[in-house]
Amino acid sequence: MEDKERGSVVQAMELGRLLLNIGKSVSTAESCTGGNIAHKITSVPGSSSYYKGSVVAYANEVKSGVLGVSMEAVMEHGAVSREVVEQMAEGVRRLMGTDLAVATSGVAGPGGGTAEKPVGTVWIAATNGIEVQSECFHFEGNRAEIIEKTTEKAIFVLKSIANK
Amino acid sequence: MEDKERGSVVQAMELGRLLLNIGKSVSTAESCTGGNIAHKITSVPGSSSYYKGSVVAYANEVKSGVLGVSMEAVMEHGAVSREVVEQMAEGVRRLMGTDLAVATSGVAGPGGGTAEKPVGTVWIAATNGIEVQSECFHFEGNRAEIIEKTTEKAIFVLKSIANK
Repeated sequence: MEDKERGSVVQAMELGRLLLNIGKSVSTAESCTGGNIAHKITSVPGSSSYYKGSVVAYANEVKSGVLGVSMEAVMEHGAVSREVVEQMAEGVRRLMGTDLAVATSGVAGPGGGTAEKPVGTVWIAATNGIEVQSECFHFEGNRAEIIEKTTEKAIFVLKSIANK
Repeated sequence: MEDKERGSVVQAMELGRLLLNIGKSVSTAESCTGGNIAHKITSVPGSSSYYKGSVVAYANEVKSGVLGVSMEAVMEHGAVSREVVEQMAEGVRRLMGTDLAVATSGVAGPGGGTAEKPVGTVWIAATNGIEVQSECFHFEGNRAEIIEKTTEKAIFVLKSIANK
């Protein structure tokens, strides 16, 4: 594994130990990370005990049609927004029937950035079915680095809501 | 990127050029690859032009409930079978509304192997909505290597059905 990937793999291993301890299951809804969170979680042997599945929702119609995100939220706030990422997290948690879920939506670049939401702008939301935690981050780097940093942070956020 | 990942990244870049040329879209349904195919496809800048999304279906209830795989097929043939992987591919193609789709189901190990289906046994199916191509592979290596080899082969199979 490359050095830059060690952070997310360590997070995924720690998440696995935590979820086995507390007996909770997890799913993910990924836009800008494109499946990398699922990939890192499932790189841990035995992850099928707590990981049920993911929806990688790159297109807005997948966010809406599969995850139940309202197209009004997408039109009003944009796909990279607190409203959309929170609906993605809650949508995948319900769809997969898991205790916990995490979602990402951001601008990984190199294209797609705007003055308001430049490349590296990422929203992450995690839910335990009772509360939703969401936060906007601004990551530096190229496309691969932004995807990797988002993955590491998303698993970290998931661990913190799992502990509640 | 590590050397062992170069093959799948090259395949993903070639797939991207091909799909842009022929104007076709793609989705993926992943069991044993756990999101790595989606991750490799979306590592290519501009992939949002042809890639709509994925379902990572680790649990059998996700294969059934989200992708529409029949539980009878799972019970009769097992999750790692031609019947299930073909239903996964067709299920995700319909769900995501894409021209093409690829699906994987296999035993990445280290656990889960049997005499009939040892670690490294992987079914891959690809569909263009008219025909479905499926094949069983036997990959050598550890968990990470089997996931990576399956990813590279799945994108290769997808390219070959895209060309039809």
